[in-house]
Order: sequence, then structure tokens, then C-alpha cells
Amino acid sequence: MQLAVRNHSMPLEALRYEITPVGLHYLLIHFDIPMVDAAQYELGVGGHVKKPLRLSFEDLQSRPATTLAVTLECAGNGRARLSPRPLSQPWLGEAVGTAEWTGTALAPILQEAGLKEGAAEVVFTGLDRGLQGGIDQFYERSLSLPDAMQDDVLLVYAINGQPLPPQHGFPLRLIAPGWYGMTQVKWLRSITVTDRPFDGYQQATAYHYRTVEGDPGVPVTRMLPRALMVPPGVPDFMSRTRFVEPSLQLVEGRAWSGRAPIVRVDFSSDGGRSWSAAVLEEPLSPYAWRRWSARWDIRKPGEYELCVRAADAAGNVQPLDQSWNLEGVQNNAVQRVRVVVGTASGKQGAADMPWRRSSLP
Amino acid sequence: MQLAVRNHSMPLEALRYEITPVGLHYLLIHFDIPMVDAAQYELGVGGHVKKPLRLSFEDLQSRPATTLAVTLECAGNGRARLSPRPLSQPWLGEAVGTAEWTGTALAPILQEAGLKEGAAEVVFTGLDRGLQGGIDQFYERSLSLPDAMQDDVLLVYAINGQPLPPQHGFPLRLIAPGWYGMTQVKWLRSITVTDRPFDGYQQATAYHYRTVEGDPGVPVTRMLPRALMVPPGVPDFMSRTRFVEPSLQLVEGRAWSGRAPIVRVDFSSDGGRSWSAAVLEEPLSPYAWRRWSARWDIRKPGEYELCVRAADAAGNVQPLDQSWNLEGVQNNAVQRVRVVVGTASGKQGAADMPWRRSSLP
Repeated sequence: MQLAVRNHSMPLEALRYEITPVGLHYLLIHFDIPMVDAAQYELGVGGHVKKPLRLSFEDLQSRPATTLAVTLECAGNGRARLSPRPLSQPWLGEAVGTAEWTGTALAPILQEAGLKEGAAEVVFTGLDRGLQGGIDQFYERSLSLPDAMQDDVLLVYAINGQPLPPQHGFPLRLIAPGWYGMTQVKWLRSITVTDRPFDGYQQATAYHYRTVEGDPGVPVTRMLPRALMVPPGVPDFMSRTRFVEPSLQLVEGRAWSGRAPIVRVDFSSDGGRSWSAAVLEEPLSPYAWRRWSARWDIRKPGEYELCVRAADAAGNVQPLDQSWNLEGVQNNAVQRVRVVVGTASGKQGAADMPWRRSSLP
Repeated sequence: MQLAVRNHSMPLEALRYEITPVGLHYLLIHFDIPMVDAAQYELGVGGHVKKPLRLSFEDLQSRPATTLAVTLECAGNGRARLSPRPLSQPWLGEAVGTAEWTGTALAPILQEAGLKEGAAEVVFTGLDRGLQGGIDQFYERSLSLPDAMQDDVLLVYAINGQPLPPQHGFPLRLIAPGWYGMTQVKWLRSITVTDRPFDGYQQATAYHYRTVEGDPGVPVTRMLPRALMVPPGVPDFMSRTRFVEPSLQLVEGRAWSGRAPIVRVDFSSDGGRSWSAAVLEEPLSPYAWRRWSARWDIRKPGEYELCVRAADAAGNVQPLDQSWNLEGVQNNAVQRVRVVVGTASGKQGAADMPWRRSSLP
């Protein structure tokens, strides 16, 4: 509960925005948000390098800048739908967002520091500190050297044309397009090249797909494909059940994968018994979600279960049912939205009071 | 659960900011966030008036502008600490935020429309629609005419110097300083003067303090006093228990009341058995929280319960224990933060690996 009210997902109606407004993008913050003075800030670059660097915020901003639209998703998205529910942030399926991130490429900075013979990984350490798994730690994750040297891996200082707000990693964060959110280290304190695999808690213990305790498991890496829809109609406050009047509906949403381009999205209005292909639009960048839409001509009152399923060019397809795992990571089962078609309610709400009808726009 | 991941509170470390950055301010959204085209937008002003108005977004922005720092808090803040827990958004105690809101005063607009004899209330209707209590409704709330005519009641189109983001009510919302959040209607569609008490769901049914079903209850109005602290030390990810090393700590936070100025904040490090007065700073405006701070000289390892308690000039003081009510509204019992003083962990984290120590800033 403490995690659920602290962190937040993106309300599904915000799938309407190609670029998620700041404040609607999902957030998962392991420890506390650090308060950083940009004037005092320095990024250390060290470890297995010839010339360790200390870079000021000004220096970082004066380097060549790149802006990229990138979709980010939490590795634990969908966790709360598993049974039994793994103990952690209880995401339902909305831990996603797409932003335009501006920063400078990492590779030239590593080249400037000079990689020593035998350089193997690059460790990104945040300023956010706390306990997890009984270990006192700064949040930190690594990438292999080839992954870290990709052109699209950025040290980012702006989101949607504005300075990073505190919750997104001010003053500097990593963006590694395609990878789940645990990779995107915020409040970067240092970058350390290593000559051996990094064995920190968030790398070697957490973020593994395991079905049995003690199993070494498979590390979580890039995002599996997922499509989400804007739930049609209007919601009930408590149950979030949707009510739609009989009509022709254009159901829309977004789909993404961190493994390969999205090539197909299918829509079902009968709980997955039959499917039809949705229309796909071009994404803003190779790393951003694609808009999809499907027509749903619904004249008959009753209850419906809407589903949407994405597939990528690497042959990854969303499963209909979620397979359980200990940490509740990499859940990408199809979204299911229950919709009641008919008149929303027999009762007449205050919105229809006669003294109002005449005077309202 | 669906409400908890959708809505979000302000992480308590953000109490460090006098003005809460966008994206950290609490949010409670009853239905869906409407997507509004400002170019097409019109505010209707009608009902019991001589000359109904239709105001464009441009017209509203061309009127005299006022910027006010205002603290907002959800009426259900603290609900999740009640037992049994009332069924609604499960806030722990962090559903608060302070922003600089810019807009134009409501009173001159009502005067321009010309109040008819017998005008009694002003109803604010949002564009957000859904079901609650079995009633299909646009979200709407009223103020009495005297309350609505206060100089400080604003129709707001900017937050912290930026256009309102969708989740805060773009393009236009109400800000009525001092009142709990349910009053601050977002995505304003119309303003309607009435000659009788408004009996809409959110006014006549919801937002009442009741201890027994069927009781008429007392309407929720202005915020009761509350103080919150930035939890000291570092957190455990799952339990959120705090760990502090033996040291002299400056504990800080904010305190506010919608009923009268905050005149006193007391701090306790022994679960409320003994109290000492905190130092208070001036607020940014009469409607904004006041910063407080207290020294906590803690040398002895062990477990502590920190508490903070505010009082206002009208004689309202935070209770030590929360009295239960059906909706879980107006909870303002003192905050209690459990802190473990000592070395955070016996285990050595990855942050202390020898190859890192030499190269880090």
C-alpha cells in the first residue's frame, strides 16, 4: 500500500497523447528522491579507464545534444494481476509512458575517458540510497560494454523540452532505449567501467525471471511487446467498470516492444475468441510506441470483454494468460477491459436537472 | 488497488520544496481525465443570472491575473490508516501539495453576469463524467454565494508558471483556497448560479462526516490543521522503515490549516510522550503551508517513533488518535514515523566495493 500510493502508473486515457505529459508518465522510485543542487553537481566517470573524468552539469549540457522519443515501461508492470501476488509495487498494467528525452550520447564520454584493456561492463550509480534485500545501497545497474556503447544510449537532462523534474532524475539520468525501466538509472552520481560482471543487488539478485526460489533465473533485459487500449466509455469511480452507449466506437491505444518493431496489433471484443487486425500508425521514433485503432460497432446491450494483443518483428507475441514468476516481472499478457453496453444508469444524475439544461453550454 | 495505482500522493521527501514541482503534487481524479481543445473551449456562466455568459479561453486569459501559492489536500487524506478501512482511494497521509496557481478572480465574472434576487449558491461543473453511487454525473460541487464571492477564489489556467497539465484541469479549474480538494473542480465546463441548495451527489451525499449509516452527517468544508515531516535517514524499499545513523538531525516539514493560520508545531521523538516546539517560518501566502524544523540529537541506537502536531489560530489541534468515520474524511491525526537508529545494515552493499571507492567522486 505504501508503495502503491507513492508510485503511480499512467492513467490509460493518457494513451491518447503520443508524448506523455509530465506528471502522467509512470514513476517507480525505489528509495527517496534526492534533492540535488545542479551548481554543485559533478558526474564521476572512472573505474577501468585511462583518464577518470569529472563532468559538471554545464559541461554535460555543452556537449552535442540528441532528442529521442522513447517509451519506458516498468519490468514489474502487470504484477498485481498475478496470483499469488508477488510482494512489491502492485502495478496493474499501466506502468508506462513515452517522453522526448534530451541529452548527450554516452559513448563519446567513455571514449574520452579511454577504456582499458579488458573493460567488460559499465555501472551506473544513482544518488538515491536505501535498503533492499537487507543491503544498504545506492541504486545501481550495469550494461555490458557493447550495450552501453550504442549510439542511442543517452545521459539525459531534459524531458519534453523542460529540465528534468526531481522525480525523473534531476539533474542527470540514463536513457537506454528498449530496456525495461530498471535500467534507466536516475540522479546519476557516477559511471564506472568494470573488468568483471557487476554483482550489485539490483543486477545480480533483483530483476530476474524465476519460478522457484534459489533458481539463478534469467536476467530481465528488454521490453516484451505490449498493447494497451484507452478504455472506452465512462468509468464507475470505485469498480472502474466502463459504460458505453450502443454506438460505433473507435477504440484506440498504443503498442510497443523493446526487442523489435511492432508489426501487428489485434483487437477482440469477445474476450479473445475472435480477433481482427487493428490499423497501425508510424511511431515518432524506433523507440516509441505506435498508435493503433480498431472499429467496434456495438449495438447490442450486454457485457463485453475487450482485448488487445501485439506482436513484434522478432516473433514475440503477447500471451493470453500470464505465467507466474517470483518477482512478477515481464508480465505482458493481453489487456482485458470489461465494458457494459447500455444506458449508463437508470438514475438521473444532478447533471440533468432541468434548471441546468437551459443554461449550460 | 485500481484507485491506488491511478491516483498518487506526494512523496514525503518533497516536503522540502516550498512549491511542489508538477508531477509530485497529489492527484485524485474521480473519473477519466478529459482531453480538451483550448481553441474550441468555452466556459458557460448561467443559471440564476441576468445575462448568461460564454467565455473563451482567450477571454479568460485576457482578464486581470492573480498568482497565489495555495496548499491543497484531499479530504480523504489519511483514510488508509483507519480500521476498518473505508472503501475509497486509500491515502496514507501524503495527499497534499502546494502550487503557485495563476488565474482570474471569479467574483467580477459573476458580477458581470448579474446575480438575480435570491441567488444562493454557485455550482461548478467539470467535463469529467462517470458513475458514482449509482449516478451518472459530471463531477460538480457548489459554494455558497458568500464563499464564491471571496477575492481569493480563482478560475485558474496555470500552475507554477506553466499551462495547466491535463491532470490538473486543463484548460480551466477552480481554486478556492483553504477548502479541501473536492471543492477545487477541474476541467470546468460551466458555472451555474442557483436559488436553492445544490443537491448533486458530490455535494449532498459524498464528502460528509458520518459515523453511522443514514446519519445526515456534517459536510466537509475547510482543511483541518496538519503537519508532516520529511522522514529522516534512508528507507527500506519494501517496509519504508527509516534508518538513521547516530547524529544531530534537523527534522523538517510543513504545516497548514484551511481554517486559520498555523501558530504552533510540536515535535516528539518518543511517540508523543514529550513534545518540544518546532521553529516556524513565514509562509509564501496566507493559503500556503509553513515550513517548520526541529533539532533531534540522537546518539543512542534503538527504535524511535517521531511525531509532529500542528495547531492553528482558531484553536484547532491535531488529535493523537484518529476517530473513525464512514467515508474516511477529515483525518488529521498526528503523523508517526518509525525510525531505527544505528548502522543501517550489517551487510556490505555493492556501493562499498573496493574497486569503486577509489574512483568515485
